[in-house]
Amino acid sequence: MTDKIVLAYSGGLDTSVAIPWLQDRGYDVIAVCLNVGQPNADMAFIQKKALQVGAIESYAIDAQDEFADTYVAPVIKANALYEGDYPLVSALSRPLIIDHLVQIAHEHGAVAIAHGSTGKGNDQVRFEAAIHALDPQLKIEDPIRDFHWSREEEIDYAKEHNVPVPIGKKSPYSIDANLWGRANEAGILENPWNQAPADAWAMSVAPEEAPDQPVFIDLTFEQGLPVAIDGKAMKLADLIKHLNKLAGENGIGRIDKIENRMVGIKSREVYEAPAAAVIMAAHHELENLTLERDVAHYKPLIEQQLATMIYEAKWITPLFDALMAFVDHTQTVVNGVVKMKLYKGNATAVARKSDTNSLYDENLATYTSADTFDQEAAAGFIKLWTLPGTVFEEVNHVHSQKPEEK
Amino acid sequence: MTDKIVLAYSGGLDTSVAIPWLQDRGYDVIAVCLNVGQPNADMAFIQKKALQVGAIESYAIDAQDEFADTYVAPVIKANALYEGDYPLVSALSRPLIIDHLVQIAHEHGAVAIAHGSTGKGNDQVRFEAAIHALDPQLKIEDPIRDFHWSREEEIDYAKEHNVPVPIGKKSPYSIDANLWGRANEAGILENPWNQAPADAWAMSVAPEEAPDQPVFIDLTFEQGLPVAIDGKAMKLADLIKHLNKLAGENGIGRIDKIENRMVGIKSREVYEAPAAAVIMAAHHELENLTLERDVAHYKPLIEQQLATMIYEAKWITPLFDALMAFVDHTQTVVNGVVKMKLYKGNATAVARKSDTNSLYDENLATYTSADTFDQEAAAGFIKLWTLPGTVFEEVNHVHSQKPEEK
Amino acid sequence: MTDKIVLAYSGGLDTSVAIPWLQDRGYDVIAVCLNVGQPNADMAFIQKKALQVGAIESYAIDAQDEFADTYVAPVIKANALYEGDYPLVSALSRPLIIDHLVQIAHEHGAVAIAHGSTGKGNDQVRFEAAIHALDPQLKIEDPIRDFHWSREEEIDYAKEHNVPVPIGKKSPYSIDANLWGRANEAGILENPWNQAPADAWAMSVAPEEAPDQPVFIDLTFEQGLPVAIDGKAMKLADLIKHLNKLAGENGIGRIDKIENRMVGIKSREVYEAPAAAVIMAAHHELENLTLERDVAHYKPLIEQQLATMIYEAKWITPLFDALMAFVDHTQTVVNGVVKMKLYKGNATAVARKSDTNSLYDENLATYTSADTFDQEAAAGFIKLWTLPGTVFEEVNHVHSQKPEEK
Amino acid sequence: MTDKIVLAYSGGLDTSVAIPWLQDRGYDVIAVCLNVGQPNADMAFIQKKALQVGAIESYAIDAQDEFADTYVAPVIKANALYEGDYPLVSALSRPLIIDHLVQIAHEHGAVAIAHGSTGKGNDQVRFEAAIHALDPQLKIEDPIRDFHWSREEEIDYAKEHNVPVPIGKKSPYSIDANLWGRANEAGILENPWNQAPADAWAMSVAPEEAPDQPVFIDLTFEQGLPVAIDGKAMKLADLIKHLNKLAGENGIGRIDKIENRMVGIKSREVYEAPAAAVIMAAHHELENLTLERDVAHYKPLIEQQLATMIYEAKWITPLFDALMAFVDHTQTVVNGVVKMKLYKGNATAVARKSDTNSLYDENLATYTSADTFDQEAAAGFIKLWTLPGTVFEEVNHVHSQKPEEK
Repeated sequence: MTDKIVLAYSGGLDTSVAIPWLQDRGYDVIAVCLNVGQPNADMAFIQKKALQVGAIESYAIDAQDEFADTYVAPVIKANALYEGDYPLVSALSRPLIIDHLVQIAHEHGAVAIAHGSTGKGNDQVRFEAAIHALDPQLKIEDPIRDFHWSREEEIDYAKEHNVPVPIGKKSPYSIDANLWGRANEAGILENPWNQAPADAWAMSVAPEEAPDQPVFIDLTFEQGLPVAIDGKAMKLADLIKHLNKLAGENGIGRIDKIENRMVGIKSREVYEAPAAAVIMAAHHELENLTLERDVAHYKPLIEQQLATMIYEAKWITPLFDALMAFVDHTQTVVNGVVKMKLYKGNATAVARKSDTNSLYDENLATYTSADTFDQEAAAGFIKLWTLPGTVFEEVNHVHSQKPEEK
Repeated sequence: MTDKIVLAYSGGLDTSVAIPWLQDRGYDVIAVCLNVGQPNADMAFIQKKALQVGAIESYAIDAQDEFADTYVAPVIKANALYEGDYPLVSALSRPLIIDHLVQIAHEHGAVAIAHGSTGKGNDQVRFEAAIHALDPQLKIEDPIRDFHWSREEEIDYAKEHNVPVPIGKKSPYSIDANLWGRANEAGILENPWNQAPADAWAMSVAPEEAPDQPVFIDLTFEQGLPVAIDGKAMKLADLIKHLNKLAGENGIGRIDKIENRMVGIKSREVYEAPAAAVIMAAHHELENLTLERDVAHYKPLIEQQLATMIYEAKWITPLFDALMAFVDHTQTVVNGVVKMKLYKGNATAVARKSDTNSLYDENLATYTSADTFDQEAAAGFIKLWTLPGTVFEEVNHVHSQKPEEK
Repeated sequence: MTDKIVLAYSGGLDTSVAIPWLQDRGYDVIAVCLNVGQPNADMAFIQKKALQVGAIESYAIDAQDEFADTYVAPVIKANALYEGDYPLVSALSRPLIIDHLVQIAHEHGAVAIAHGSTGKGNDQVRFEAAIHALDPQLKIEDPIRDFHWSREEEIDYAKEHNVPVPIGKKSPYSIDANLWGRANEAGILENPWNQAPADAWAMSVAPEEAPDQPVFIDLTFEQGLPVAIDGKAMKLADLIKHLNKLAGENGIGRIDKIENRMVGIKSREVYEAPAAAVIMAAHHELENLTLERDVAHYKPLIEQQLATMIYEAKWITPLFDALMAFVDHTQTVVNGVVKMKLYKGNATAVARKSDTNSLYDENLATYTSADTFDQEAAAGFIKLWTLPGTVFEEVNHVHSQKPEEK
Repeated sequence: MTDKIVLAYSGGLDTSVAIPWLQDRGYDVIAVCLNVGQPNADMAFIQKKALQVGAIESYAIDAQDEFADTYVAPVIKANALYEGDYPLVSALSRPLIIDHLVQIAHEHGAVAIAHGSTGKGNDQVRFEAAIHALDPQLKIEDPIRDFHWSREEEIDYAKEHNVPVPIGKKSPYSIDANLWGRANEAGILENPWNQAPADAWAMSVAPEEAPDQPVFIDLTFEQGLPVAIDGKAMKLADLIKHLNKLAGENGIGRIDKIENRMVGIKSREVYEAPAAAVIMAAHHELENLTLERDVAHYKPLIEQQLATMIYEAKWITPLFDALMAFVDHTQTVVNGVVKMKLYKGNATAVARKSDTNSLYDENLATYTSADTFDQEAAAGFIKLWTLPGTVFEEVNHVHSQKPEEK
């Protein structure tokens, strides 16, 4: 009886070639393709293609809602931006994909999982970290990393094994995309002094080509997640798709940066995440209105830790869960509406309100005579607030004159 | 012999009225006005006005370079944004002003310092924290906080004491400005659901009114500070002024947010900081290129702490100095050039290079055959990187199936 | 109809004198005394005394279990030690006391709460923070702070109002005690170069006077809390009392330190917390055995924040709750037994085990041939772990020689 | 011409066997032994032995002062305890050893460095991280990791190559020691429920066997480092040796814990660090007296990061340097004397003073009439300190009753 292996299948050349390659190594291959919102995902075609190139079984799974509700939602609640910039597009789909693959492996009694990552990127770590966490007994195969094909060798191998080879010139870029955004690297981008050319982008127009009139939308949040646009309720996956289109048309969501990969090298990345740019700016401003000050000042430490952990393949870990328990606790009060202006690359919060949880108190804040703030309290506050520093200077005179110098 | 008091003098109605008011309390008033780059600062006129309304002595000091080099520079190096948004405009000038006032107090043997802050804002804390640190023996007077004048009472008092009263309607806003930006609050802005009207802004045009063609500039940094635009060297104060104009014309630098004041209330603030928006985006991207990963991932914790401390009146403290020792140490390698695109509200880094300190290694990062990265190392790395989490799941099965469930 | 006030009543002179003083200010006084495990708490006597000196109503409430389960338990789970040393004795009882007082105030329609804290300590902040949080409409009276009696004036006032005055010399110390420990300050301790004399201590013997034979106990934890000693189950309050006696007899739990009070001054404090010393050392070591590495390395940041917040009167805040959500999440796996050796001041973990949640894997750790660790993985791990630092040195040569220097 | 390799040589069996093994691989071996204070370091004998078993050159270097001044001193200033417990004994000597080896390699034109670490411990990472940082061109050999000898095979190989084999039974433990302490693992210790037997310890007596009378010493610090005992100045290495003896005789410095190794496994470690226990307790208490509150509350975050980095082989990194710039800045004021009591396992600070930098102000802290603290300031402070939490409760009623419920 032949050992079974479950392959993370995309329909592209690399993972198609992997099917005969894994067969050569003695496996029966079960191909699994997940729809996480990548563009042009003709799932029926992909499912069929896997069988054509030799898989014994082929799955095509629509995981868009699961992706939005279970993997994107924490990023929104945690304002998670890797290195302050990147809303963690590819890092989110990897644990979801493996979760499905391990389940299918268990159903079929498979002994191994295969993926098609290169040996110098982040994805190999994310795929394998999830496999180790969910079932460390499963063996792992990575044809792309183990077998260093040149492009020509790969095409020759494909032809020999009746794997369809795409016609035309290969894209110079290495691309990954899902509902939450698109990542692009390689090619001309590898010189960081080169500007990203027009063909590096796909989800957004250049700001210069966006409409000359701004668009305003009211984004409603409940417990930290967007639930409606202009009062119209949408489930999260649909809301993100809607915003990707609208914000992309307005030139919003482009990111171009040098980034620290987890394997220890710097890379130049070009991302697009139009919906993320709008949602995360709105969420941050609604938190400004509804989070108590100490929460607002402490949460960024947790957020940065979460963003780094998600990037660095630590989704299925007890620290991730405990940090999300903190985040979830803070989000119960993040309810309200933010008016966003979308205009030629800018996604700006221009107004915000929360009927139930606003901590802004116009009677405390006002400079008018409606003022209810106790101004007398300030003098005492200042005295004690500054007392440790004052005593320090009196003793050590780092910035101040010593008495004899006056 | 009459006690002397040194007054932080702006030339406006509040601090002009303060002069006779302090005289009534038995002081000889020494007025000091500092030019920190606020607009329309006719220093000679202000100096003379103080004498006219009763000061025994009047100073007008150009502190623009000191402000840029000593107070703005740390903000740039530390990427210091209060609550992630605000580049700390007003908080920076307060310790500089007090530093001059205390020196003048010592020269004249004055016994007190006066400032004109309201009792519910941040500035009273910043002024008085600096006074306590630099000379806790000095008494502090704050006529505005202690004597709750209505607008009408203040004007009556001014007229009685021959203080010129500005003609025309008072601005509905409460404004503070310097070289690094402009802060605006009060008036219609006090309702956070109101959009900021056109007259709330002064340093920038609306993105819609900015030119239709982008502007590109090359910003050169040495040791974390900008030193040249398009190869032309400028001292920091001049470079900031140049960028305020250029970026402001392109609709850049507007910030509209709910903010936690240090006296415990939330306020709605409208800021403009065109130069800051350009410089800080460029600086961050140059750090992406030149900072080692662990430094890049740890520095944001320090940055957030510094931003909060600067906002919260802790400039002259030993913790601030120690944290800046950390920051300064990281900046020695932040040398290079960032190409910035300025276009209708967007300030975007589109290319970056560092001849001497770039840690981006194209031969490590490339997907071409020039690759020098050791892909074999990845498998071992992944195994040990994920081992603690793997053991945790094997023992506790939080996410994974127990063996008997498979 | 007279306004009612609820007084935090201890039975001592200060809060007894407060009763007629509050009556003079026009209040009907409701006295409330809580038993939180302070020594010699004759609750019936105290309840009666309040009525004798003029209270219209008097409550005596046994809150020991509530104190242990709701206020001490988080400290154990969070390893919360203020400034690394102090297990937060007094800070814990304040929010509990106020919680009861506010409930009683609401039942009686009282308009105010009174407490008897001095104006330079932490307790005034803790009491009033809790009152503000639970009902900011309640007025607050603090006779001790507002009315600066000398000892003689207080005694005269007591005699005039038929308040019994304690016979004999007043203790030179200012003491607060509960189930979790005892705090002592003032008197000879105010000179930090003086050693604490024998009469400064009450819950423990000096190590020199402890038995010459060590005592060993097995402390069992469930979900981070101690539940049994030597296999005998006890509720938390009883377990703490048992350990206070046993560890105190063995000279354990003395703390003598300079501390930063929240009002901005340093004070010299002498604490005793025998049970805390044993429980917290055991808990930490059980976490060493059961927490995953990333959790173990991140939790101390949360712990320090919680310890500071508890000390600084932030128990009833949303940040405290969110941080405890993190901590509680980590504690589900903290189950097992720690063998503690108690000997002349030392409380030392000498053995530990967890049948269900130990992450120690002898087959991974061993240096014997049973080794299952993959030593080949280490080389790859090291290469990638050190790659960013290696590239940094290759470029910048901070520690290494430049090629031409070799 | 034969390639040269520089070997970290201890004189023991493993690194002696390494010499012929490296010769077999075609190297000329240069042996280097460093005295970092390990016990019984007969440097002349070791130097000679290396030549006898085949080294072409042999160095014996006394690095005790360098070790104390450059590697131990930062640990003291940073209160660096890995996982809160372990003062980082072995982790400190590795970068020093490599620093010397790389220098010698450059002098001799050697192409490689060899060390004798196992493949599952921390030391391999520390050695190789230092090599990569100081000269990534150098090749690395690790015979022990690469060639999995059993004990018997190793002895056979030794005999064949005329390497002296130690007579008698091998110690069941794996031990590393230097000036700063001693680490012990393996053997019976591998079961964490076993108590460490008497023969596991070498630098200290059991507390039960220590003298019945306490010893008191005055430890003087300058800029955060101990410089004198009872007023007698000593250089750091000598002071540590003196305290190792004195504190070890008093049963001080034993640590027994489960620890997270950097290769991802938990191990059980038994450490002794008598001098460290005394010095670090004294240093912490002197900081309590001399550090301003904000510094005192922030520094522990830096300290924890440094301790983890030192443990995890990140000594020669830019983040380590920047964090030490922070620490060094804080230590300028850490001057004074701490009186330590040493008694049967306890090292306790019982008195402390600083003539020049004490921030303890008896006139602020006292409860006597000498009080200069402004008690009126407290009320205002409390109001603003608690305002954000108060507003949060008024809006959200998480802990408080809603108005209608009262």
